[in-house]
Amino acid sequence: MSYVADDIICDAPAGRIEGADQYRAFLRPFFKLLKRAELMAHFGDEESALLMYDTVTVLVPSGPACEYITIEDDQINYIRLVFDRAPFQAAVQLAA
Amino acid sequence: MSYVADDIICDAPAGRIEGADQYRAFLRPFFKLLKRAELMAHFGDEESALLMYDTVTVLVPSGPACEYITIEDDQINYIRLVFDRAPFQAAVQLAA
Repeated sequence: MSYVADDIICDAPAGRIEGADQYRAFLRPFFKLLKRAELMAHFGDEESALLMYDTVTVLVPSGPACEYITIEDDQINYIRLVFDRAPFQAAVQLAA
Repeated sequence: MSYVADDIICDAPAGRIEGADQYRAFLRPFFKLLKRAELMAHFGDEESALLMYDTVTVLVPSGPACEYITIEDDQINYIRLVFDRAPFQAAVQLAA
């Protein structure tokens, strides 16, 4: 996580995440579910990047996502995360 | 729609859309709901583009989306659309 700024801001579907600790806490449960990720498209320059990728998790066979990332002093200071929560919500409801 | 190839393929959250007619039929109800769209990030080259934008619709105040687009002979022949269906599904359930 050395590439993540201490004061990173991540705008995720459910709201804003502030700081590296909160960001780590946000990612941890997802990484536990993650089986595989595949980059579908990516562009970037010195200051920003835009990625589209698909994820395979134990919950959902295809969970595509996009991230717009900005970089300052070689660290990620902002992420706008867009992903389809619908299949995850459906899987959780099915499991409940 | 002259920039859309007749044989466009669009992989949308709910499945594959094939051909310009089907793509138009897919977009029409969304455009009826759309109040405003704002481009958040965009990259591209001669053959492809990756966009992130937010939409304001009568259903949902913020419906962010991403599109990976490929271009052949000056026309869009493929779109991979990723957006968060959750707020739209919640709005429809609330209205039902």
